[in-house]
Amino acid sequence: MGTHKDLISIGKKGKAAARKLAFASTEQKNKWLVAMAEALVSEQEKILEANSLDVQAAESKGLRKSLINRLKLSSEAILEMSKAIREVINLPDPVGEGEFWTRPNGLRIQKTKVPLGVVAMIYEARPNVTVDAAALCLKSGNACILRGGSEAIQSNKVLARIISEAVVASGAPEGSIQLITKTERDYALQLMKMNEYIDVIIPRGGSGLIKTVLENSTVPVIETGTGVCHAFVDKDADLEKAVSIVFNAKTQKPGVCNALETLLVHKDIAQNYLPLIGHKFKEYGVEIRGCPKVTSILDYAQRADEEDWSTEYLDLILSIKVVDSLDEALDHIYQYGTKHSDTIITENYTTAQRFLNEVDAAAVYVNTSTRFTDGGRFGFGAEIGISTQKLHTRGPMALPELTTIKYIIYGNGHIV
Amino acid sequence: MGTHKDLISIGKKGKAAARKLAFASTEQKNKWLVAMAEALVSEQEKILEANSLDVQAAESKGLRKSLINRLKLSSEAILEMSKAIREVINLPDPVGEGEFWTRPNGLRIQKTKVPLGVVAMIYEARPNVTVDAAALCLKSGNACILRGGSEAIQSNKVLARIISEAVVASGAPEGSIQLITKTERDYALQLMKMNEYIDVIIPRGGSGLIKTVLENSTVPVIETGTGVCHAFVDKDADLEKAVSIVFNAKTQKPGVCNALETLLVHKDIAQNYLPLIGHKFKEYGVEIRGCPKVTSILDYAQRADEEDWSTEYLDLILSIKVVDSLDEALDHIYQYGTKHSDTIITENYTTAQRFLNEVDAAAVYVNTSTRFTDGGRFGFGAEIGISTQKLHTRGPMALPELTTIKYIIYGNGHIV
Repeated sequence: MGTHKDLISIGKKGKAAARKLAFASTEQKNKWLVAMAEALVSEQEKILEANSLDVQAAESKGLRKSLINRLKLSSEAILEMSKAIREVINLPDPVGEGEFWTRPNGLRIQKTKVPLGVVAMIYEARPNVTVDAAALCLKSGNACILRGGSEAIQSNKVLARIISEAVVASGAPEGSIQLITKTERDYALQLMKMNEYIDVIIPRGGSGLIKTVLENSTVPVIETGTGVCHAFVDKDADLEKAVSIVFNAKTQKPGVCNALETLLVHKDIAQNYLPLIGHKFKEYGVEIRGCPKVTSILDYAQRADEEDWSTEYLDLILSIKVVDSLDEALDHIYQYGTKHSDTIITENYTTAQRFLNEVDAAAVYVNTSTRFTDGGRFGFGAEIGISTQKLHTRGPMALPELTTIKYIIYGNGHIV
Repeated sequence: MGTHKDLISIGKKGKAAARKLAFASTEQKNKWLVAMAEALVSEQEKILEANSLDVQAAESKGLRKSLINRLKLSSEAILEMSKAIREVINLPDPVGEGEFWTRPNGLRIQKTKVPLGVVAMIYEARPNVTVDAAALCLKSGNACILRGGSEAIQSNKVLARIISEAVVASGAPEGSIQLITKTERDYALQLMKMNEYIDVIIPRGGSGLIKTVLENSTVPVIETGTGVCHAFVDKDADLEKAVSIVFNAKTQKPGVCNALETLLVHKDIAQNYLPLIGHKFKEYGVEIRGCPKVTSILDYAQRADEEDWSTEYLDLILSIKVVDSLDEALDHIYQYGTKHSDTIITENYTTAQRFLNEVDAAAVYVNTSTRFTDGGRFGFGAEIGISTQKLHTRGPMALPELTTIKYIIYGNGHIV
C-alpha cells in the first residue's frame, strides 16, 4: 500500500484547522452553523442534481430498494438537514465547561472540556450523515474528515463543498470540514493509520465496516452500532405491557441497531404470552425463529439454529427462546448479547433490580422499548452514533462525547 | 503466530470474574483489599527471595544500575506497597455513582458509573506495578490481567500469587487478579487481539512498548507516558520563579514522564536569565543542548540538533531554545510537544491566558513545575498511569478513569 499524499495533505489541513477551532467562541461557531444551514437550502438544486446521479447509479447497479431509499434526497430532506443544524445551534456548547478545585498547597486545578481535535468519520450510504457529523463536530470545536460510501459520493461531494465553503466564507478556519473524495479501500486504510493527524475515528455502518476499522486502525476508535438487543418477558410481567413493548421494539423501525432481535420468555408464562405476541407478529408479517418450546406453542414459527442467537437481523425477523429462570435469561444475554440495549418486562421489584444491575450493556431497561436508546430520546438533542465499546463513553454520543479534557493549573512558583 | 490456549483460558476466567466483580459492594471490595495488604507483609520473605533471583539475573546480564534499582525490593518497599493498598481502601468507590434525569414522557434515566470489565496492563521492570494495578482495578470492580516484564518475572509471579490467593480466600471471584507468567513477545501480541475477553489495555513503560501496543492492539488502548515537556520563560517572567521552577522540573526526578525536556526562553530576557539557570545546571551536572543563541550566551552548552527538540531524555540533559515571541513558543510546542505537560513562567496576565488556552496538552501550567502532573499531586489519591491520548481521559488516571458508564432506564410501558 502506497501513501496517498493528498490524504496527508487533508490530515495536515485538518490538524491546522483544529488548532484554531479549539478556542473559537460559541458565538463564532454558531455563526458558522447558521451559514451552513442557509447554504444547504439556497443551493438545494445542486444537491438534488448530484443526488439523482447517485440514485441512478444505484438503480442501474440493481441495489436494494431500502438502500436506494436511504440514499435519496428531496427538498424536504434538505430542509430537515438544515433544521437539524439549527437544533445543534441551540444546544449548549460543552467546550470550556468543567470543574475546579484547590489543592492544600494552593495550586488551583481546572478540569476543562476541550475538543478532541480532528475527528474522522467513516460511514456508508446516507448522505445526511455528512451534514450531521460536520455540524456536531464544528459545534464541539473539532475539525472533521469525512469519508462516506461510494454509493453517495456525488451527493457527498456537493454537500461537503457547500457546507465547507459556507463556514469558511463566514470565518471558520480552512480545513474545518473536509471530505475524502476517493472511495477506494486503501484510502480508508491509510486514514486509519494517520495517528499524527487524527485523534479519533468513528465508524458508522454495517458490521463489516466496523470490523475493518477495529482491525486496522491504530488511531483510537469509538466502536458503534451492532445491536443484538434482547427483551426478557419475566413470569411476573404485565402481559399487556409485554405485548406492546415487544411489538414496538421489533417492528417500529426494524432496520436500526436498537431494534429487538431476540425475545426471551419465562417458561411459566410462555403458554399464555406467546400466542398473544405471536398473533400480532404473524399478522404483521414478522418471521419467528424459535427454540423447540416456542415451535411447539406457535405452529407457524420456524426452528432457530445456534447462529440465530447472535444474529442482528435488522429486518422483520425475531428469534424467541423460552427460559427456565431469570438466571438463564441473564446467561443467554451474557453469552449472545452485544452490550447495546436490553430490556426486562416485569412487575417484580427484585427481579427488575437484578436485571438492571447484572446485565452489562450501554442501556438496560425495565418495562420500556429498547428503541429509546437514542441521543434525541435521551434528551441530548443530537446523536453522532451509539458507542458499544466501554472506553471513552457508552451509548448515545452527542456534543459532550466529542470532547476530551485538559487540566489547566494556576500556580505561583510551585515546585515539587 | 499460534494461539496460546492458556491465554484464552486466562481471558475467559477474567471475563467470568469481571461479571461478578461488577456488582460487588464497596465493603466487599475493601475487605479483599485488606486481605491483600496483610498477605504482602506476612509473606514478605517469599517475595524478597524471589526478588533476589530477579536482581541476580539482572546483575549477571549486566543491566543498567538504574534499572536494577527499580527492580529491587526490600522490607520497607513491601510495607510501602501494603500502605499504598490501604490508601486505595480509603478512596471513594466511583462505581454506582452518577446522575439521573427524567424525560418529559416520564422515563427516568440513570447515567451510572460501572467498571470497565477486564483491564489488561502491560508494563516493564518495576514489580510494585503488579500490586498497585491490581489494587486499583479491584477497588473499581475490574478484573485485571497483568503482564510484567521478564526482568521482574520471579518477583511478579510470587506477588501475583500472594495477592490473588489472598483476595480469593477472602471471597473475591477466582480470576479477579491474574498474571501472565510467559514473557515471550507472542503472548503479549495475542493478548492485544483478545477483544472478546479484554475491554481495555493500558501499556506502561518506554516508548518502544507503547508503540508496539498502539500498532498491534485491536483491543481499545489507553496510551500513556511519553512526555517531551516544555517550560516557556516569557519576557515578563519573574526570574527567581523561573530559575526555581525550571530547575525543579528538570532535576527533581529526571527519569519520569513529567520531567522537563525542553526550555524555551524569550529573547528579551535570554541574556539575563540563561546565565542564572545555566550556572545552576552546570553545578548540578545537567548537560545543555542549545540553539546557536544559547551556545553564544552559555559557553559550556553544546549545539542541539533537530532531533533534540523531539527527544524525551529522561536524564540530566536539557534542550534550550531562544524564541522571538509567545507565538514562536506556541508553534514550537505544537510541532514538537507530546501533549503531556507544558508550563509558562510569566507575570503577564494575557500572555498566561493565551498559553493556557492555546497549548494543547493534558496539563498546562502557569508558574508551576511540570512535575505536578500526577494522580497523587492532583488529589486523586492514586494513579494507574498518565493518559497522553484524548479518547476516554487525559492526564493522571485513578479510580474514576477505570470506569465506564451504563444507562439504566426505568419505564412503565413506554414505547416509541
